[in-house]
Amino acid sequence: MEENKFFESLTVLICEKKFHKLRAALLATNPVDIAEYIMRCDAKDRLLVYRILPKELAAEVFAYLDTDIRQVLVNSFTDEELTSVLNELFLDDTIDFLEEMPAYVVKKVLEHTDPDKRKIINQFLQYPDDSAGSLMTIEYVALNKNYTVDEAIWRIRRIGIDKETVYTAYVTDGKRVLEGVVTVKDLLLAKNEEIIAEIMDENVICAHTGDDKEKVSETFKKYDLMSMPVIDAEGRIVGIITIDDIVDVIQDEDTEDFEKMAALRPSEKPYLKSSVFTLAKNRISWLLVLMLSGIVSGILLGAFEDALLPVLVAFMPMLTDTGGNAGSQAATLVIRGLALGELNVKDYLKILWKEIRISLLLGSVLAAFTFVRFVIQYAVIRKDDIGVNAFLAAIVVSISVLFVIIMAKTVGSMLPIVAKKLRLDPAIMAAPLITTMIDALSLTFYFGMAKAILGI
Amino acid sequence: MEENKFFESLTVLICEKKFHKLRAALLATNPVDIAEYIMRCDAKDRLLVYRILPKELAAEVFAYLDTDIRQVLVNSFTDEELTSVLNELFLDDTIDFLEEMPAYVVKKVLEHTDPDKRKIINQFLQYPDDSAGSLMTIEYVALNKNYTVDEAIWRIRRIGIDKETVYTAYVTDGKRVLEGVVTVKDLLLAKNEEIIAEIMDENVICAHTGDDKEKVSETFKKYDLMSMPVIDAEGRIVGIITIDDIVDVIQDEDTEDFEKMAALRPSEKPYLKSSVFTLAKNRISWLLVLMLSGIVSGILLGAFEDALLPVLVAFMPMLTDTGGNAGSQAATLVIRGLALGELNVKDYLKILWKEIRISLLLGSVLAAFTFVRFVIQYAVIRKDDIGVNAFLAAIVVSISVLFVIIMAKTVGSMLPIVAKKLRLDPAIMAAPLITTMIDALSLTFYFGMAKAILGI
Repeated sequence: MEENKFFESLTVLICEKKFHKLRAALLATNPVDIAEYIMRCDAKDRLLVYRILPKELAAEVFAYLDTDIRQVLVNSFTDEELTSVLNELFLDDTIDFLEEMPAYVVKKVLEHTDPDKRKIINQFLQYPDDSAGSLMTIEYVALNKNYTVDEAIWRIRRIGIDKETVYTAYVTDGKRVLEGVVTVKDLLLAKNEEIIAEIMDENVICAHTGDDKEKVSETFKKYDLMSMPVIDAEGRIVGIITIDDIVDVIQDEDTEDFEKMAALRPSEKPYLKSSVFTLAKNRISWLLVLMLSGIVSGILLGAFEDALLPVLVAFMPMLTDTGGNAGSQAATLVIRGLALGELNVKDYLKILWKEIRISLLLGSVLAAFTFVRFVIQYAVIRKDDIGVNAFLAAIVVSISVLFVIIMAKTVGSMLPIVAKKLRLDPAIMAAPLITTMIDALSLTFYFGMAKAILGI
Repeated sequence: MEENKFFESLTVLICEKKFHKLRAALLATNPVDIAEYIMRCDAKDRLLVYRILPKELAAEVFAYLDTDIRQVLVNSFTDEELTSVLNELFLDDTIDFLEEMPAYVVKKVLEHTDPDKRKIINQFLQYPDDSAGSLMTIEYVALNKNYTVDEAIWRIRRIGIDKETVYTAYVTDGKRVLEGVVTVKDLLLAKNEEIIAEIMDENVICAHTGDDKEKVSETFKKYDLMSMPVIDAEGRIVGIITIDDIVDVIQDEDTEDFEKMAALRPSEKPYLKSSVFTLAKNRISWLLVLMLSGIVSGILLGAFEDALLPVLVAFMPMLTDTGGNAGSQAATLVIRGLALGELNVKDYLKILWKEIRISLLLGSVLAAFTFVRFVIQYAVIRKDDIGVNAFLAAIVVSISVLFVIIMAKTVGSMLPIVAKKLRLDPAIMAAPLITTMIDALSLTFYFGMAKAILGI
């Protein structure tokens, strides 16, 4: 709310053409908020607001704008403005930006970059989307191990201004091979005349350009890192990854798991920016697969035609829903445990044993509850003929509840582990797929029992 | 695998009583890995390995151990060892540790803390579990705005060793009221004689002790922060929050959403460390609620007794499963969008309009598919009497598919928004609850249509 008022006051300044005041107000505002203001602005005012910013701040704001707004701005930029943004942007932001732009914009941008930087950009654009390489930036501080602490601090003070992080410096030899790291904290707390080689940590946790970014984010979390060097096959440092990009990776991975668990193909863009057709496309494949597998339940039910008495059919939704819920509870805990590294494929016996005990506990309670409910409903309240013995039918329904819970917990907890073992993503084994399997097994057991016990 | 070999080599050193070599090997190992080794060790070796570490490293390793192992160690500690760990641990780690320990351990620990620290610990222990206060640490660097850059760097070099982060310094007045921040980067890149007041950023993004930690983590993400000061009602700085704790908050919040969406009560401990009884307790309440609501479907079906022909019953699982899946797809996207701040309650009309178009597209395809399948199965392959006209029945089933998809997408996308509007957690509106609602609506429509069109 406060934000909105502030944004309105900026718009008033634009209307009244008080551009000095506007500039002063923007200079006192966080770049993230300026970006948000530009995105909410009328289209005609966007370029005006952007152009009023000093160029360093403008580049920072640019890094926080949405793709579509960036593209509009780039199209209206003069050549000088484009060059200026490119000089000020960190390399990782430049790469992110270029990956989202249509080819003609990329061409225009590359034409305005000097040949050295163009070469690096082209190299960075080639790293696969899910690799450590795609997260890197090259703005890091490199030191020589023979420097003294004093020389190192002096060097950081001289060149640090262009670097994304000055807090970890990387010690490299003449061929850029990584030899160690030293943090600014180490430097500040050491004596001026100490040699870097003596205080550097040689035990560097680093990634290779081709490493999967999920693996990289796990290492960040495990070791509570703030940044991590990325090396090539020869051990040479090619860039660094910083924690702010890892936070995004963690959230993207979680979003992907949420989507997979709900039978969605992972989306590329936020919901409101995706077209109806794209959203429908991401959903239809799984819906079709699951609908096809619904045929299985239909065919199974066909085999029990005589047993489809109204009183038994009335309990079908309760049985299949309970099975689906019980299964997805177990599946979710196992999938999340695997994703966070708290569970391992090797734990499968422990998990199975736990789930069996849980389902005996839950199953007995729910079966007892069902039995009582059935008897009250069909033998106490409603005394007309339901076609079968009410007590026997109550037994059939409640034994089925027990069976469904045990079976659902077993299937739900084990399928993600099987997926992981087969090197598939455990998340795709969640609710929808499990529901379909559990449906088929539950209905077969239920009507099979009914036929056997009730003699129909 | 590599890790396991290394751990085995350490165990061999213990067996051969080569403690000097063991100590040397441990000194070259990351504290996180040492903690992992101690947790995997035989119980009898744990204290031995821990005691071999120098005290600063020991405290760092201690911060990475699991609760149960910490408790075992604390119980075997001498008073001196306990005091030493407490002196070396950062305050936020001390608080986390104390919150997990039984009362008698907390008492023992507090007896070994000096009165000043004990007062702070007691104050910190009182912040609610989900508040900014519970994430804070007090190890920050405070500066006076009249210092020169040179004096500030000198001060950091002198006192920084005890601080969790030395990279952001907080400028405060005599009463600890926060006046601005200055990063070590700013200091390093400024001239020695500049005054802090001139280079500090007065526009500080900060949290209040009582702020919800989810809100704090959103601010961290929005502004790409590394740390954030926490102030009290009088604007005095009481502590700082660092990004490593925020990464944990993000993951915990996501885990909680996964659990809620699978009809689980949020768990306190990892799966393998939770008892069967606790796990069952977290699952039973929702299973009972959903089972009770399954009664509604049962009663509705009871009203359609005459319409429960085998051919129609055979399509029930397909219809309810498709509805459940379609609904949870929409619900998941909306819940996740709300959680990430990409969607807002105000967007409800945009979302509704999008979902209606998506469901018309998906619904038509799936209805056409169902119609063709029904006709082939019942009019082409199997020509015996199914009790009703096969074409009319095919129309009933496929119109129901279309209806179910539209209804499921609407319910699935709107319920989380309603929850958010009512200040409930949107995640509890996910799959299970929606499935139950969709079941009831689908079955009513399906058998209602059947009665009307097929005249049964």
